[in-house]
Amino acid sequence: MPTEQQFLPDDAPADDAAAAPRRGRPGYDRETLLSVCVEVFNRYGYDATSMGTLSRHLGISKSAIYHHVESKEAILGQALDRALDALEAVFSEVLANGSGPVNKLEQILDGSVRVLVAQMPYVTLLLRLRGNSEVEEAALQRRRHLTHTVEDLVRQAQERGELRTDISGKSAPRLMLGMVNSIVDWYQPGRSGTVDQLADTVVTMVFAGLRA
Amino acid sequence: MPTEQQFLPDDAPADDAAAAPRRGRPGYDRETLLSVCVEVFNRYGYDATSMGTLSRHLGISKSAIYHHVESKEAILGQALDRALDALEAVFSEVLANGSGPVNKLEQILDGSVRVLVAQMPYVTLLLRLRGNSEVEEAALQRRRHLTHTVEDLVRQAQERGELRTDISGKSAPRLMLGMVNSIVDWYQPGRSGTVDQLADTVVTMVFAGLRA
Repeated sequence: MPTEQQFLPDDAPADDAAAAPRRGRPGYDRETLLSVCVEVFNRYGYDATSMGTLSRHLGISKSAIYHHVESKEAILGQALDRALDALEAVFSEVLANGSGPVNKLEQILDGSVRVLVAQMPYVTLLLRLRGNSEVEEAALQRRRHLTHTVEDLVRQAQERGELRTDISGKSAPRLMLGMVNSIVDWYQPGRSGTVDQLADTVVTMVFAGLRA
Repeated sequence: MPTEQQFLPDDAPADDAAAAPRRGRPGYDRETLLSVCVEVFNRYGYDATSMGTLSRHLGISKSAIYHHVESKEAILGQALDRALDALEAVFSEVLANGSGPVNKLEQILDGSVRVLVAQMPYVTLLLRLRGNSEVEEAALQRRRHLTHTVEDLVRQAQERGELRTDISGKSAPRLMLGMVNSIVDWYQPGRSGTVDQLADTVVTMVFAGLRA
């Protein structure tokens, strides 16, 4: 872990970073600090987590945390960016290169499954948000934009006669995204099969159905 | 509302129940008390809700609540029973009368969608549980039993050649239940279409797929 990115206990000099491990009060790089905070948010809920709770779980003082991030909300913002940037990258790539709305929808579901598995704690945090602050509301706004993209693609595909029109074009997009989002609640890497199988199962179920 | 079931402010005599409405501090029947508590649990999270919070939202004293339920956990237990009894009734009925595993799965998804919509706040509470207490663990155990029933039916249907075998028999049951469960996050009665359309869309998507 690069020294210049380390979060250090506030009583440890910076040049101590590469020295022998400190007992109980580790230095953190930006990445590890973020990941520990997100775990704590997911365990106790963001609102119920204070900077004191974070400090206890990180094993560093509050002022050591404040040295690197300005607030609990700033940590939340970074964590949500992680999830949303990854999801938005999938959508942009697919919208630029996919051919036809059904193909785009398939690729979006496939790519979203992979982001959910790769960034599971960050997406979990995103999916449990209630939008009580500006940072949360901004994230929910970005999430809604992704949902609307899926709604538009379903509508286009129905208009072209490529998807059934006897199902609700309003519910179907939310149901397919709900199916993908459920992954954070039950998927256990290794125990629930590979991410390739998972993505295949989602895309097959949604578009071709489970019937043999 | 039947007088003998009313939850009264502890400073109001019982025989006042049928009298003119009291200003600001309503009497509650068991049903209304439960439903207000469940709304509060869903808003703040069960763990973060104290008897004091419930008392404030109900507009009655803590001792008035304790007059009718022995603890916060007892209220939770009643609320979770509401959701689980309804879901279990669907499963029992279908297992007794359905013909073949695919037909049973279709009926279970259809019936579960209807329970989710009809008992939305109770099912929402159930789905957000983390299992930190005996009551929660018992509810999660009952929920797991329902999941295993769906897994068994998918496996039977795959063995009979009625469902695809090129998808993961482990992921598919959880994905279809995840799709159904997502309903509590986005469905708005009236605005998102009827419950009949919703149940049809779920069953069609899962078994026949969306492709025209």
